[in-house]
Amino acid sequence: MKKLINDPKNVVLEAASGIALAHSDIVTVSMDPLFIVRKDAPVRGKVGIVSGGGSGHEPLHGGFVGFGMLDAAVPGPVFTSPTPDPILAATHAVDGGAGVLHIVKNYTGDVLNFETAAELAEAEGLTVRSVIVNDDVAVKDSLYTAGRRGVAGTVLVEKIAGAAAERGDDLDAVAAIAERVNAEVRTMGVGLTPCIVPHAGEPSFTLDEDEIEIGIGIHGEPGRERIRLEPADAIVDRLLPHIVDDVPFVSGDRVLLFVNGMGGTPLVELYIVFRRAAELLAERGIEVSRTLVGNFVSSLEMQGCSITVLRLDDELTELYDAPVQTAALRWGR
Amino acid sequence: MKKLINDPKNVVLEAASGIALAHSDIVTVSMDPLFIVRKDAPVRGKVGIVSGGGSGHEPLHGGFVGFGMLDAAVPGPVFTSPTPDPILAATHAVDGGAGVLHIVKNYTGDVLNFETAAELAEAEGLTVRSVIVNDDVAVKDSLYTAGRRGVAGTVLVEKIAGAAAERGDDLDAVAAIAERVNAEVRTMGVGLTPCIVPHAGEPSFTLDEDEIEIGIGIHGEPGRERIRLEPADAIVDRLLPHIVDDVPFVSGDRVLLFVNGMGGTPLVELYIVFRRAAELLAERGIEVSRTLVGNFVSSLEMQGCSITVLRLDDELTELYDAPVQTAALRWGR
Repeated sequence: MKKLINDPKNVVLEAASGIALAHSDIVTVSMDPLFIVRKDAPVRGKVGIVSGGGSGHEPLHGGFVGFGMLDAAVPGPVFTSPTPDPILAATHAVDGGAGVLHIVKNYTGDVLNFETAAELAEAEGLTVRSVIVNDDVAVKDSLYTAGRRGVAGTVLVEKIAGAAAERGDDLDAVAAIAERVNAEVRTMGVGLTPCIVPHAGEPSFTLDEDEIEIGIGIHGEPGRERIRLEPADAIVDRLLPHIVDDVPFVSGDRVLLFVNGMGGTPLVELYIVFRRAAELLAERGIEVSRTLVGNFVSSLEMQGCSITVLRLDDELTELYDAPVQTAALRWGR
Repeated sequence: MKKLINDPKNVVLEAASGIALAHSDIVTVSMDPLFIVRKDAPVRGKVGIVSGGGSGHEPLHGGFVGFGMLDAAVPGPVFTSPTPDPILAATHAVDGGAGVLHIVKNYTGDVLNFETAAELAEAEGLTVRSVIVNDDVAVKDSLYTAGRRGVAGTVLVEKIAGAAAERGDDLDAVAAIAERVNAEVRTMGVGLTPCIVPHAGEPSFTLDEDEIEIGIGIHGEPGRERIRLEPADAIVDRLLPHIVDDVPFVSGDRVLLFVNGMGGTPLVELYIVFRRAAELLAERGIEVSRTLVGNFVSSLEMQGCSITVLRLDDELTELYDAPVQTAALRWGR
């Protein structure tokens, strides 16, 4: 295992220290219990938004804490849900009196621990709503999930719900916007190589030299099928119909097209994938009006990518475009 | 070779098409000759700034074209300098009547081809100045370089010179700012794994399972020494003194600390490196007042990182903070 780390069991805490030092203008990091919180939290009168989950998907979620997006992120151990305690602490830390929204990726551990934290917070007098993100069309039920997995679409839920909270929407309205994004977003990925969880020291699965996993999960969970390596265009031709036909997205729709790298794939390859995905959408009469390309929901050093399509309307577009000031997404301010 | 590509010889052109589609709000892409240019170029009365070099380092340089940074980027084949023709065409495309600055990383091919393009442009009546970036302290003379190599510090030269041009500095002043940044910035890297140039199909060098290259170049060129893998902190402890003692940076200095990923290294590892580098600078009484962490000058899927330190004064800080609107760096607008 070749990694730029010290003791494998300190990876998450040391990275959190690095985040605290690198982004002290935007966030504060509580080391115990561990959570990353907006420097000016709680923002009085604003709905607080908390997300979190296993580490190893950076910049998700810590890189999205700041003005216009998350109020706090709770990182668990690598690929492992955080426990209820830090989630509860983060929920308190961002409560500005207007309630708190939990944005939770649909994995059994995350759902359970966020639910427990929400119940504890409610018992202590806070108002909490939860939205479960499940944008992955690859498989129904998976290694760690009942139902669809939450993957790269989570970034868009967090961005758009964050903007709604920032403009002053109340808790029900912010939750409704988050639900709406989740209803309109679909993702599917492909994995070329596995990744190594530091405390495990070896890959959790293997792929032959010429094998790829279509529909892979962000922890390397199995997808739909293993096939032999194909040209990028052929891979996109496989993935995109599943994404588009699910909602379905149809001619005349306006969408955001998001090509997400899984950590170990060069940007040059993501743009080749983007090109083909944009061509296919154009052929179907679907207009790409917003775009995002890069490593936003990674799986450590895994090579591969996912394609996400979100149907936009005027309101979602305006909220997506709204100013954001985080470590990993910044614009307009 | 597992890559999300089609025909290896089309990688650069297909990626350029992807960039054109993904960032049509910011750039236009000329496919033949190949260059990426600011959508509103030429900007009348503003100094135009052109950079470029071999592909495979994305987002450098194409991701830095836009308001407040580059006016054009000229991508060559992977790890190979562009020829004078597209550089000349890009130079014409960004000439708004105030002259054009070429920012060139110090590799023999780049220096020669930019020089030829500059001479041709001058013969055609344009005014061109060139600044050579050579921030890498690892080695003097290298596989492709006479003198020091230009590496991640190039991003900071481009950002700060771009801001100077945007505020209306004339060509001599913009060139002087770029030279000043180059004089105040130092970088050194470490490589954990090689990368595969698509048209070669196999790694250009190999490292044993427990071996790393201290001082590696961004094309995988040899650095100072090959050692056995060490903890991240020990690696940072090796790199940082070379960077700091070169200028030297001393107690009381204010600096920008930039940890750059080489493409295949997870962000979580870059933050662990950042943490140790920040600690060491603090121990020396050097104040980190600006930070940058991420993949900005990559080497395809290579695992590794580089550490860059730039000494700031009030003017450089103000120019670094100035608004920028590119695919890969955006803030303040």
